[in-house]
Amino acid sequence: MKVLVLNCGSSSVKYTLFKMNDKDEKKIAWGIIERIGLEDVYYKRQIINCIEKKETVNIKNHTEAVELLIKDLLHKKKGIISNINEIFVVGHRVVNGGNKFSKSVLVTKNVKKNLKDCFSIAPLHNFANYMGILAVEKILPGIPSVLVFDTVFHKTIPDYAYMYALPYELYKKDHIRKYGFHGISHNYVSQKAAEMFDKPLNKLNLITAHLGNGSSITAIKKGKVLDTSMGFTPLQGLVMGTRCGDIDPAVIIYLLDKYSQYRNNITLLNDLLNKKSGLLGISGISCDMRDIMQAIKNKNTKAILAFKMFIYSIKKYICAYYGILNGIDGLIFTGGIGENSANVRELICKNLDSLNIKINSKSNKNYSGVAKFVSPKNSIVKLLVIPTNEELLIARESKNVIVSN
Amino acid sequence: MKVLVLNCGSSSVKYTLFKMNDKDEKKIAWGIIERIGLEDVYYKRQIINCIEKKETVNIKNHTEAVELLIKDLLHKKKGIISNINEIFVVGHRVVNGGNKFSKSVLVTKNVKKNLKDCFSIAPLHNFANYMGILAVEKILPGIPSVLVFDTVFHKTIPDYAYMYALPYELYKKDHIRKYGFHGISHNYVSQKAAEMFDKPLNKLNLITAHLGNGSSITAIKKGKVLDTSMGFTPLQGLVMGTRCGDIDPAVIIYLLDKYSQYRNNITLLNDLLNKKSGLLGISGISCDMRDIMQAIKNKNTKAILAFKMFIYSIKKYICAYYGILNGIDGLIFTGGIGENSANVRELICKNLDSLNIKINSKSNKNYSGVAKFVSPKNSIVKLLVIPTNEELLIARESKNVIVSN
Repeated sequence: MKVLVLNCGSSSVKYTLFKMNDKDEKKIAWGIIERIGLEDVYYKRQIINCIEKKETVNIKNHTEAVELLIKDLLHKKKGIISNINEIFVVGHRVVNGGNKFSKSVLVTKNVKKNLKDCFSIAPLHNFANYMGILAVEKILPGIPSVLVFDTVFHKTIPDYAYMYALPYELYKKDHIRKYGFHGISHNYVSQKAAEMFDKPLNKLNLITAHLGNGSSITAIKKGKVLDTSMGFTPLQGLVMGTRCGDIDPAVIIYLLDKYSQYRNNITLLNDLLNKKSGLLGISGISCDMRDIMQAIKNKNTKAILAFKMFIYSIKKYICAYYGILNGIDGLIFTGGIGENSANVRELICKNLDSLNIKINSKSNKNYSGVAKFVSPKNSIVKLLVIPTNEELLIARESKNVIVSN
Repeated sequence: MKVLVLNCGSSSVKYTLFKMNDKDEKKIAWGIIERIGLEDVYYKRQIINCIEKKETVNIKNHTEAVELLIKDLLHKKKGIISNINEIFVVGHRVVNGGNKFSKSVLVTKNVKKNLKDCFSIAPLHNFANYMGILAVEKILPGIPSVLVFDTVFHKTIPDYAYMYALPYELYKKDHIRKYGFHGISHNYVSQKAAEMFDKPLNKLNLITAHLGNGSSITAIKKGKVLDTSMGFTPLQGLVMGTRCGDIDPAVIIYLLDKYSQYRNNITLLNDLLNKKSGLLGISGISCDMRDIMQAIKNKNTKAILAFKMFIYSIKKYICAYYGILNGIDGLIFTGGIGENSANVRELICKNLDSLNIKINSKSNKNYSGVAKFVSPKNSIVKLLVIPTNEELLIARESKNVIVSN
């Protein structure tokens, strides 16, 4: 059977087509349509056995984007399916399921209503996901859609960890609480780690570090999330590419009090914290770790500071979660930076032998894209690098929802 | 010699008079004048060998408060000094020294100017301190004043730990960074702990937990602060009596976006986070731990939640700091709750044996106000309860500044 995975962002549609059997899960086509809503929409795609293709296309919205990619998959010569009914299910990545969803679900009228109710807490992302669903209903009539949420894996976080110490009414009325994000990735790599440990997840305490342009760390106790660093939104927690992570909330009061521009334009304040902070804000150079590393080679002091802050914020969360789990079996690195920067992994693990965290430098440096252990053989805490595969987890979940329905 | 210690809050003046010799440091008078600015000003005081006295007095401001207490200390029958010149120095507790002060200082014209420059980041508190200095200059002419700051002990925090990942200009221009507070208390108990360990501070890694209505935790590496939980203001960090501690900064964006009352009145937003949150906000009952404990006995679910959140927030910081110190010699409890609640200490230390943190329940329960160890004898990490004495540290610092000048 074939499963199509859609990841609709505010201005992009990413897709992956899997061929799935009991024995095999194979990615057979994938692509991305970017800058939807702008003049030049980029389209990059690859269908297995065909050459990768990049072009500028003329589309206006998510519906047209989905239409375009389906047309391509059905293309007589270069396509890979001959009939839309070959698609068993479409799995949609949804950023925020709020309080409404606690598992992956088949899209129904009621589900769409509940998704709409979550708009207030994740307006941009969830609206794009909604557009994706409508597009599929229009272009692939009769093919079921399943929603897979980035928040659901964190549903097991206990109240004392997900509540903020704000007036209780804000939780009751406005649903302000920690939701956590990157759940699909944390879920995928923890499952993969259990395979590598050759132990069931419910026998393992794990910390998963998803480090990329957005970064988060999750504490997983016997398969269930106990805490995660992102919060009500993906702004909380670690120092990220352009997001500030943890700050004193009084800083915002100070800025509002001093600068009328922020009082008069909340979007400006939101952009400051979400788009102009993090590695970019401190370095003044870039949100991209590769640019930061280059600037460090040139002894740029702000790039050095930004990098140190990034590492330090990660160390603090790993140590906090090690403690609340009362010891761990494994620490897993994933995400763009987590997978690609041996240097970052090495520095995070430095001087943590009091937590039995030690890295095997040679093994760490030799990581080449295939999941592996990078700690010394006799280590109490195992360190792992695992390439994440959110699309595959979405495909599996979507298939399971239909099969078990 | 006699040293007068003044702690001027926005609506109160606390004072302590010490008699200090090389061998002895004795508190000989103390008192508090509260509700300054309101109709009924309360005055509670005790001069050694005299009965404690409480009354309502008719004063209007900090100057009159200082005048009143000096008059009392000089009282022919019930007073304890016969001439103001017996006062060697007046030590003032100052909440925020900002970027301007890195040690305790003798008050000069220039020092007063620098203190005024710090008003923008700690308006209420520092203004009261300034009033206290002016009052002393007027009422005790010729007696030197020394400023002892609650932020100075944290001056050793490295840049990667005190910077927020906000645009760098906010640090350069507005001095937005972590300052840390409760420094006088963390300093005092770490010195006392070194005495109890019978080791120099520079051979010890310590975590100090000052838990009261305001709470903070500090990581001290060989006598130097490496990090602390409070930040730009005392709002950041732990769940406190009425303060929210760490939250997703995006929660504030959400509130501003949804509720025009917060956009129109920043004080309302500030009060929400600083005065209506914490234990009070969650429980809906009280900011006082004794009331929370009483409500827990009556099985009040919100009080139980508030208490669990308080304990959990403390555990997370202790574990994070244990890791960044790469192991510790001692964990010290102080402050109203830290000293008085054996239950809180016990719950914080529960299930932390992976960090070698274990409590001796019996010894812990038997704490009676005198500094002591409460861990089992063979523990790698020692647990200590130490009654804080901020006034004594201020007196010592003030005396030293004059003697060494």
